Amino acid sequence: MTSMRLYMKMSLVANTGKAYVDEPLHCNNTAGVKVNEFHLVQVKGTWKRKTGNMFKKGRVSAAKICESTTEQGTSWTVVSPVVFTYKVTETLDLLDPGNDTLLLGHIRDPQQLEALRTSGSNKPLKRFVVMDQTVYNLYSCQLTDYFEARNVLYRILPLPTTEENKSMELVMKILEEVHKFSLDRRTEPIIAIGGGACLDMVGLAASLYRRRTPYIRVPTTLLSYVDASVGAKTGVNFANCKNKLGGYVPPVAAFLDRSFLQSVSRRHISNGLAEMLKMALMKHRDLFELLETHGQFLLDTKFQRISGTQDHQDAASISTRMAIEAMLEELAPNLWEDDLDRLVDFGHLISPELEMKVLPSLLHGEAVNIDMSYMVYVACERHLMTDEEKLRIINCMAGLELPLWHKDVTMTLVQHSLSERLKHSGGLVRMPLPIGLGHAEIFNDTEDDTLFRAFDKWCDELRPQEPELVQSVDVNDLLMGY
Amino acid sequence: MTSMRLYMKMSLVANTGKAYVDEPLHCNNTAGVKVNEFHLVQVKGTWKRKTGNMFKKGRVSAAKICESTTEQGTSWTVVSPVVFTYKVTETLDLLDPGNDTLLLGHIRDPQQLEALRTSGSNKPLKRFVVMDQTVYNLYSCQLTDYFEARNVLYRILPLPTTEENKSMELVMKILEEVHKFSLDRRTEPIIAIGGGACLDMVGLAASLYRRRTPYIRVPTTLLSYVDASVGAKTGVNFANCKNKLGGYVPPVAAFLDRSFLQSVSRRHISNGLAEMLKMALMKHRDLFELLETHGQFLLDTKFQRISGTQDHQDAASISTRMAIEAMLEELAPNLWEDDLDRLVDFGHLISPELEMKVLPSLLHGEAVNIDMSYMVYVACERHLMTDEEKLRIINCMAGLELPLWHKDVTMTLVQHSLSERLKHSGGLVRMPLPIGLGHAEIFNDTEDDTLFRAFDKWCDELRPQEPELVQSVDVNDLLMGY
Repeated sequence: MTSMRLYMKMSLVANTGKAYVDEPLHCNNTAGVKVNEFHLVQVKGTWKRKTGNMFKKGRVSAAKICESTTEQGTSWTVVSPVVFTYKVTETLDLLDPGNDTLLLGHIRDPQQLEALRTSGSNKPLKRFVVMDQTVYNLYSCQLTDYFEARNVLYRILPLPTTEENKSMELVMKILEEVHKFSLDRRTEPIIAIGGGACLDMVGLAASLYRRRTPYIRVPTTLLSYVDASVGAKTGVNFANCKNKLGGYVPPVAAFLDRSFLQSVSRRHISNGLAEMLKMALMKHRDLFELLETHGQFLLDTKFQRISGTQDHQDAASISTRMAIEAMLEELAPNLWEDDLDRLVDFGHLISPELEMKVLPSLLHGEAVNIDMSYMVYVACERHLMTDEEKLRIINCMAGLELPLWHKDVTMTLVQHSLSERLKHSGGLVRMPLPIGLGHAEIFNDTEDDTLFRAFDKWCDELRPQEPELVQSVDVNDLLMGY
Repeated sequence: MTSMRLYMKMSLVANTGKAYVDEPLHCNNTAGVKVNEFHLVQVKGTWKRKTGNMFKKGRVSAAKICESTTEQGTSWTVVSPVVFTYKVTETLDLLDPGNDTLLLGHIRDPQQLEALRTSGSNKPLKRFVVMDQTVYNLYSCQLTDYFEARNVLYRILPLPTTEENKSMELVMKILEEVHKFSLDRRTEPIIAIGGGACLDMVGLAASLYRRRTPYIRVPTTLLSYVDASVGAKTGVNFANCKNKLGGYVPPVAAFLDRSFLQSVSRRHISNGLAEMLKMALMKHRDLFELLETHGQFLLDTKFQRISGTQDHQDAASISTRMAIEAMLEELAPNLWEDDLDRLVDFGHLISPELEMKVLPSLLHGEAVNIDMSYMVYVACERHLMTDEEKLRIINCMAGLELPLWHKDVTMTLVQHSLSERLKHSGGLVRMPLPIGLGHAEIFNDTEDDTLFRAFDKWCDELRPQEPELVQSVDVNDLLMGY
């Protein structure tokens, strides 16, 4: 059928790998051992190994089997690409019965979609929904009305999906309810509606049930709108460690409706802006300048459409779109995180330890921002940016009402965090640092001396001046930048 | 860098898909919506979306992002191939301190391997091992000696990994111990030594820990040697359903050492032979004839090397190799089971319900064989094989000392099993049936009438003649074919 060779890189160390079009997918030849490389060709439903590149008939898989024989026996290496596909879709008024996104938006096959649209009420659709308890209190009536209007067989399970409850126990609870409800394996996705903890837990439950059941993410916080919804990660906390258990099975779709954000507190809008700022600093100067200019407006309006604000009119839709696109660019080529050099790790080197230490006083995005703030000083100390650029960034953070400094970030914590990272990142610290505004690279050669000098300057410039304030720091103070 | 288009199929319904070299990886154009297709190109550590096919510099990912915009907002479709790679390696004397397969056999990079071999005792390796309790009683001293001789830091966790204990609770127990021991994320694989239940549970634990920790499978039963070790599936039972929770994350390696089989009972050798016979009937006539001729010898010798048995000399190594190769051919192109037409499902349409119903009286392979035996009658009734071929297969099964018939297989059970399968297989029954000897296809058009006629004939010919035997059936009777 084809003589085309498939070009892909095979991972050498881990058992998954990213695929590149410029590197061949092949077997390694260990010194002195002859390796036979087989394609797989399917004829009449049966797969057969074939050598060579020319096949007269049959379907050729991109998978390969490589075989080598020594006196100990045979060794086979299986190289099998699996294609993950998911949609991230912006929509308006998701819970309006006239909008069929929630029920059909995940279907990519136009024929299937048309068939479902026309069959209409003949065969009711079936949906299982997990909803964060707080979100349930606000939106369950609307959701029930939606399902009733669309003649859907449904079950809504409200759960307290807080960070403290983000555990395997709650995942098992979801699984028991899913099992009782009974879903078709492939065509009836589980729907998660809530913040990041809810989406992560439901994702894990769905990915485990029958080795994967499709699921849909509906984020209701800004943080999950621009972060959890865009990627493939699922997870729960374990043994006091954040997201220690989980996987990388993406949802079939994430449906983004900004109207949910109107019920979110100002502090939680700030929280989400931190992850948007992260992407801006790493790779998107336009997004940075937009947040710099319109940050307060976005906080005031909670990303809602407000008439008569012409200067800012599109800030909400443009900034979220920029953040999502920047995130997707970095995630799509590295869905299973085989490449440990990740720009999206910016703000996540010191913050996990800080977040755990002071839990629950800092929100995730707040801890991330404190980490980023320090790293900006490191970048400046390394002459990757000017003092003026540093000041613009810090002022932007303050404008987004994010904390810039925290008394629990000590050099001991910094050094411990970085040494932990060494262990989990193949022996390299892989520190993403901003270069100027909206550009970044990964660095492995930041010296201790630089870290110390940056720390001193960071404390000098950002530590609140009255020592008593530092002692009596509380959540509201943090919101004001300290 | 390259203008080559990557050809791959994108799955339309589920969120994963198999990759084919003869079908393009692309975005769907829903009627009337303009879709922009972006490649992803990495320059200096930053990924950027690019249109077109010609890129002057940078690394091109095989992943794509497709974007469409409607008045509701933007929709992005991420298409991301992840390459899974794993080794299946035959070895001799795995626990001999002179054999470094257990410690280094999973490493595919020759340079890394060389570095580890030469560094030797400088930095001790660290390994966490989960061992089935029965296997632990037999082999823990040998394993301890091995680790001591190789200067390994180790922890061995013995667990009762029976089918009855195959649960998420035991997976959590493994995870707690793994967490206490502390492993390097990428370079210190967890080792599982035991039968299928042990390998499945450890696989699930490892795939969850830090979103995946590499693991190694060492099968100690014939069934897991030719089945669980070869594929990617992990799992536990849930809500009284077999393997209801799990995933498809393959091990980095499976190490196969037939010497473990000498401690397995004759009944468990039969049990494994059933899965080998399955592959033989589906696609490997030579394997069928080998099992027909040497089945009793393999049972007598438990797949060990016996001197002075020239007629059978290579039966053990050749038959296992054929079974593994046949299995790998079917699994590699369909690692995440996106294609529901699977020849390896032969013997697995009726048997799950039977196995659950009579648990623990039938072993998995025994239930599978009873299912296959009936299906052979269905195939014969459909004129897919002659009576003579049918007789050869049934005689071969009897020679492998596998049960051929069971009183609990009724037409009610058959019809219920097939209707359940319809639900989980996208509305088609997808029945693999043998055609003659060593060939098969998937059928969706077997009529009820055929199923009934085959059932009557199957009962007439294989039901034991004395009715009192049927009433007093016990495990030992089953072993004799009834």
